[in-house]
Amino acid sequence: MYLQTLGENAKNAKYTIGLLSEERRNSILLKVADALISNASYIIEQNKIDYDKGISENMKSGLLDRLLLDEKRIDGIAEGIRQVVSLPDPLNRILSEKTLQNGMHITKISVPLGVIGIIYESRPNVTADAFSLTFKSGNVCILKGGSDAINSNMAITKVIRDVLKSENVDENAVQLIEKTDRETASAFMKLNEYVDVLIPRGGAGLIKAVVNNSTIPVIETGSGNCHIYVDKDADTDMAVNIIYNAKTQRIGVCNACESLVVHEDIREALLPKLAEKLKEKNVEIRGDLKTKSVIDCVDATEEDFGKEYLDYIISVKTVSSVEEAIAHINKYNTSHSDCIITNNEEAADKFLKGVDSACVYHNASTRFTDGFEFGLGAEIGISTQKLHARGPMGLEELTSYKYTIKGNGQVRG
Amino acid sequence: MYLQTLGENAKNAKYTIGLLSEERRNSILLKVADALISNASYIIEQNKIDYDKGISENMKSGLLDRLLLDEKRIDGIAEGIRQVVSLPDPLNRILSEKTLQNGMHITKISVPLGVIGIIYESRPNVTADAFSLTFKSGNVCILKGGSDAINSNMAITKVIRDVLKSENVDENAVQLIEKTDRETASAFMKLNEYVDVLIPRGGAGLIKAVVNNSTIPVIETGSGNCHIYVDKDADTDMAVNIIYNAKTQRIGVCNACESLVVHEDIREALLPKLAEKLKEKNVEIRGDLKTKSVIDCVDATEEDFGKEYLDYIISVKTVSSVEEAIAHINKYNTSHSDCIITNNEEAADKFLKGVDSACVYHNASTRFTDGFEFGLGAEIGISTQKLHARGPMGLEELTSYKYTIKGNGQVRG
Repeated sequence: MYLQTLGENAKNAKYTIGLLSEERRNSILLKVADALISNASYIIEQNKIDYDKGISENMKSGLLDRLLLDEKRIDGIAEGIRQVVSLPDPLNRILSEKTLQNGMHITKISVPLGVIGIIYESRPNVTADAFSLTFKSGNVCILKGGSDAINSNMAITKVIRDVLKSENVDENAVQLIEKTDRETASAFMKLNEYVDVLIPRGGAGLIKAVVNNSTIPVIETGSGNCHIYVDKDADTDMAVNIIYNAKTQRIGVCNACESLVVHEDIREALLPKLAEKLKEKNVEIRGDLKTKSVIDCVDATEEDFGKEYLDYIISVKTVSSVEEAIAHINKYNTSHSDCIITNNEEAADKFLKGVDSACVYHNASTRFTDGFEFGLGAEIGISTQKLHARGPMGLEELTSYKYTIKGNGQVRG
Repeated sequence: MYLQTLGENAKNAKYTIGLLSEERRNSILLKVADALISNASYIIEQNKIDYDKGISENMKSGLLDRLLLDEKRIDGIAEGIRQVVSLPDPLNRILSEKTLQNGMHITKISVPLGVIGIIYESRPNVTADAFSLTFKSGNVCILKGGSDAINSNMAITKVIRDVLKSENVDENAVQLIEKTDRETASAFMKLNEYVDVLIPRGGAGLIKAVVNNSTIPVIETGSGNCHIYVDKDADTDMAVNIIYNAKTQRIGVCNACESLVVHEDIREALLPKLAEKLKEKNVEIRGDLKTKSVIDCVDATEEDFGKEYLDYIISVKTVSSVEEAIAHINKYNTSHSDCIITNNEEAADKFLKGVDSACVYHNASTRFTDGFEFGLGAEIGISTQKLHARGPMGLEELTSYKYTIKGNGQVRG
């Protein structure tokens, strides 16, 4: 009943929010940015409740850090909203139009998706980010954050809703699910009568639970077992440099490299140099037999090839051709981002066409898979499915379209 | 285990099928069209088994007719394939490209969705249609037809697979699930490890079962409670003509009009004339109180407003403004196709923007919502969801995209 009310509120709100002009949406977002800053002490006070609870429950320091809000971070959140305001309007774009022989004029035009559900874990800044992206694109959102951040999320949501109210806009443009138990989360995933799309943001466990339980269309995001294949015709210095960046620049992210595939003809030239470089960050290498014939490393098991470590570990598989590399990668990857390093254009072309991933790189780090790096200006997540959106999702990916057809009495014969 | 094997076969096939050139895909499709004609007697013989079983089980005449295959219909199926061949290639379209400041060149390019599952009911021609559309767009399909048509579907699939084999192409580009029990259908909907997208084609019960049970991303199709709103400023002759067409030209289709919304100021001018015209086809009118004050009709219940009759029945609701009409339609429609009839541009504009449907018409029949009528050249179904594709789905809607990124050693700072 609680969720049903939220669902009805959201469905009612979507009909007015989707019709707000670009100017109005932007002006409200700027006021939200200001309000977050002017209410920073209230938000920080509520965040302290969550943070203290985290400490008393021995939350890991990395998670505690992600949970913490201070003035600087709230400034950052507000700045993020202002950046979203500066982006082009994703709504009312004419995607195509034509006049049919019978005189009817058909226009395909971008419209909001409607009600977007977002399920996410600890970080409270997602609450403001998700609102700004969905509101800018004319959508209404229902947010389900983690219990660890509930007070922070409630505070941020309250500040946003107060602005909406004072602007005479339906405040149900954003609603937070305040019950943080699992049953409520499961029931939320069945709300397909009211929610048009569900986007989970978080670890593999959360994503899997949503995919398996949701009756709402889901956009699967996040999980990344990214591969780099070093071809026999690669520049080994470039390879070492790219692999070092993709593996160690930030280990906990979905576009980090987890798996290496190496042409056997280049293993002697590459692997000792690479091992030396990775030692700087104490990266553990797990290799197959032919890898072990060249460098000291841990034995790789079958399981290693399919693993997203999110840690200072990398697996190495040797192959005897680009075709074998492509087949190996298509078997074990998560269709996120994969890369070939080679100076051979033919091999590169085969790889770019043959690897079935959202982003396929030639001679560049997989770490670039990101809405900001791709010039989308913002990112709600990185889709690893093929339906609707693939790869980094910005504002346009938060829209659907409709056909409007103008006639003068046409009937079908 | 049976389904798992089919899934693995399909996944293996998708990597080669998606890379076939346009020329090769077209030439194979033409050979399939020829083979269906040259094997017509085999197909008709197998179809007779299904047809005789239908008769012995007292299948309704409408369904029996949909099941029947004869030489003329097989010619029609082959002709349909040839038309698909003549359409532009939906693959390898460059959707956008740009060079970033760091010199990386990003190309967004259309690619197949991969493995498409299609669950459908009696009509065996869907087997060939679905194959031709999925193959033309570089996809692999797994088909689950109804038990009523199993022998016909097996025969058609065999003919297609024989052509693929003789062309040295992976014959698992098309696979038919030969077990027609419900358990197999349910298990099929959970095959998200192998199947990228699931498209159900059939009645509301089938669609609902798929939406509620599938862990594979689904494209919801078909169900249509289409509304026509006659505004106070409408031309009543045009209104009668359009409503008559949308209601009676073909009653069993999703783009037929089921519900009428009438501005109260025009009811006296419109409804008697309309009732007179609809009498020609014995259409039953179920109206609200203000409708009954003008014409003789059955009482409409709340349930009538949300009903897809697929019959010679229409509901009538009176309203006092275009805003009330929009709210009523957004509450009861299935987001398929809705229409306003008016000479008032302001009311039309409000309606086209405010009604949340795939296709919104001004002064034309809802019956035009169709891939062929919209100039897409073909149609795999009409999507009533907002994710991925909305409204009539042609070949382009059977594609996804990937980003290919070419660099010369870029790493992220």
